[in-house]
Amino acid sequence: MALKGNALIGQSGGPSPVINASVVAAVEAARQVPEIENFYGALHGLDGVLNEAMIDLFREDPETLKGIARTPSAALGTSRLKPKPADLERVFEVFKAHNIRYFFYIGGNDSQLACHHISELAKQGDWEIRIIGIPKTIDNDLMVTDNCPGFGSAARYAAAATAFVSKDAEAFGNIEVVEVMGRYAGWITGATAAARHEERDGPHLVYVPEFKVDPENFLEDARAAFAEYGYLVVAVSEGFAFSEAELATVSDKVDEFGHKRLGGVAQALAEMLESELGVRARFDRLGNLQRCFQYCLSKVDWQEAYAVGQDAVRRAAAGETDVMITIQRKSSSPFTFECETTSLLSVADKVKLVPREWINERGNGVTEEFLEYVTPLLEGEDIPGGGLPRYPRLQGHRVEVKLPPYERPK
Amino acid sequence: MALKGNALIGQSGGPSPVINASVVAAVEAARQVPEIENFYGALHGLDGVLNEAMIDLFREDPETLKGIARTPSAALGTSRLKPKPADLERVFEVFKAHNIRYFFYIGGNDSQLACHHISELAKQGDWEIRIIGIPKTIDNDLMVTDNCPGFGSAARYAAAATAFVSKDAEAFGNIEVVEVMGRYAGWITGATAAARHEERDGPHLVYVPEFKVDPENFLEDARAAFAEYGYLVVAVSEGFAFSEAELATVSDKVDEFGHKRLGGVAQALAEMLESELGVRARFDRLGNLQRCFQYCLSKVDWQEAYAVGQDAVRRAAAGETDVMITIQRKSSSPFTFECETTSLLSVADKVKLVPREWINERGNGVTEEFLEYVTPLLEGEDIPGGGLPRYPRLQGHRVEVKLPPYERPK
Repeated sequence: MALKGNALIGQSGGPSPVINASVVAAVEAARQVPEIENFYGALHGLDGVLNEAMIDLFREDPETLKGIARTPSAALGTSRLKPKPADLERVFEVFKAHNIRYFFYIGGNDSQLACHHISELAKQGDWEIRIIGIPKTIDNDLMVTDNCPGFGSAARYAAAATAFVSKDAEAFGNIEVVEVMGRYAGWITGATAAARHEERDGPHLVYVPEFKVDPENFLEDARAAFAEYGYLVVAVSEGFAFSEAELATVSDKVDEFGHKRLGGVAQALAEMLESELGVRARFDRLGNLQRCFQYCLSKVDWQEAYAVGQDAVRRAAAGETDVMITIQRKSSSPFTFECETTSLLSVADKVKLVPREWINERGNGVTEEFLEYVTPLLEGEDIPGGGLPRYPRLQGHRVEVKLPPYERPK
Repeated sequence: MALKGNALIGQSGGPSPVINASVVAAVEAARQVPEIENFYGALHGLDGVLNEAMIDLFREDPETLKGIARTPSAALGTSRLKPKPADLERVFEVFKAHNIRYFFYIGGNDSQLACHHISELAKQGDWEIRIIGIPKTIDNDLMVTDNCPGFGSAARYAAAATAFVSKDAEAFGNIEVVEVMGRYAGWITGATAAARHEERDGPHLVYVPEFKVDPENFLEDARAAFAEYGYLVVAVSEGFAFSEAELATVSDKVDEFGHKRLGGVAQALAEMLESELGVRARFDRLGNLQRCFQYCLSKVDWQEAYAVGQDAVRRAAAGETDVMITIQRKSSSPFTFECETTSLLSVADKVKLVPREWINERGNGVTEEFLEYVTPLLEGEDIPGGGLPRYPRLQGHRVEVKLPPYERPK
């Protein structure tokens, strides 16, 4: 049975190209629930809750909301705040002052942990409220759910960008190292392998943080691939490190969650390859664009983000609480899914890694199973050719040589 | 009158998302010239000429060529070779051995200089040949021509990427510095200003290498913009330096043309802003993706690249030589242009900078004239909404505050 009162939603953690679809879906679903009197949005997640910085989403123009659902990043603002016990008390003061009976929090494993703490306190207290976590993380590292809204679009951007810079490296006959987001989990990096339609296409080598590679093997594989294809594209997770090495590329700065900032692995690998192979090596860090490049939106990703927002409200109205919405895959081709739930505790502060059997034996690529898992999630929208770039090559009928070989003057 | 014999085309310098359109246009135009018996493509530019590494483009499947015309980067391979006198002699040996009577070279100011040297030698020699430069550079720094094929798509990518990361920075209330290609010329960086539809949109500050800014003014403007908008997006050319400073961010490595490799200005500015403003500052280097991100193709750019390739062949067949094709703008709205010519000498090794009067007085942005010049060149294709991302914002009806302010525990 629906509780009479107000609802509050917040966005947390790194934004994604589709996180706003979850907010708009929740608002649109809540309009169908008469017991939900007002639907508020917290500005900058829990920061906004603590400071009573909230806006009334039912008063937004429905056409604006439709546009917001297609706007990348977090329209309510986001936050990486980790609540302390005193913060949790304050959260409930705010809930009571504003008659909040539904709380929806959109985020990854850190955010679901915050949500879990709030839910635990709710169970002990005297304030009836329904608390639902809505999954979102480009990292795709939430447990239980088949995949996470935000991942498909980030992965599609990373794969498309890798396809594009592969063409650039091929034209030069150079080495290119692409640095992809992923501290512990290599989901996005692995997805770049979907850009490789033919053997000769990049990326030729793909390194995820789950598997530690011996530097000698790395150089051997790089030499072999460069010899075979005349150029070389390596995709690597920012959290990658060689076997028996620390994270080589950690900065002394920390992010808002206290994680050390990463960055630099692509540069380090490019310098190593350039000096060992004697071939010019360049690098690109895909950086923050992975979280917001809306021109690479995945259609499936957007549909998932909308569905989890809608499902969260429907389930809360029906009485569910203390759960996170999950995606359950029904089939891969065509991709179909249903929304299910899991306890907040089952996802809070946990990390789902790429399983060992989805990484190849040598640790320099992903398996067919990985590709079967990820490819449907990259389905494109509004771009001819669908999911990922695919280009022809010239047949290259060689003109007969008529002169002796030429040696350039020094 | 058309000369009877073979034609040769090469691609040089940094690739672009549309440089292949020029090659395909030239092949398609050459099929209409009966005197052109074979049309060869040099693999990796002058490298391919020197080494007789050439392919027969008339034998390529026309459908494949249509696909190649839409493939980013240089399908023939590219080169940054600077020919020495002995190389030029060898070039003519190859021309004679293969009865090359038409030579087309696609590139920027370094490549047009190579083309000019070849043309000078042709004038002195006994080999009748027509030599035409085809403009290409994402940097947009060729003299005489209104703009350069390759620029529109690179600029559209840079502007779109800046719009996207602006949404990300806005969600966090952070500072973001975007590093854009451009050693001496700020054309691409300036174009990011076209992404700013409203005052509140990023980029709020735009710095080109043509104008030296005082660091105190920079910090003052950054503080003011951050205070006004609650976040801050700065776009900066990789070659930017403060007044009286050397290029602060030059690496000790050089590229194939002997230019010092740049990179690092965004990181340096982000660190400066973070420490001076006390706000988390991040940075993104748009990097090599600026040369190849085909999902941000500009329609106008592609049309120009096709037109200059076609025009080069037609003019050569009609007897012209020793010229580069130029774009002459006829109107901006709608954008129309005609192909004209200029002498190779007028563009070889010269750089067209953003004129002082197109940079604002403070040196932290571009003028309306710059935007009127650049906007038609960014016209999109196959992406809803046309040229650049444009997003609504929530109206944000604030919920009334009911509690005393909250101070977080330390």
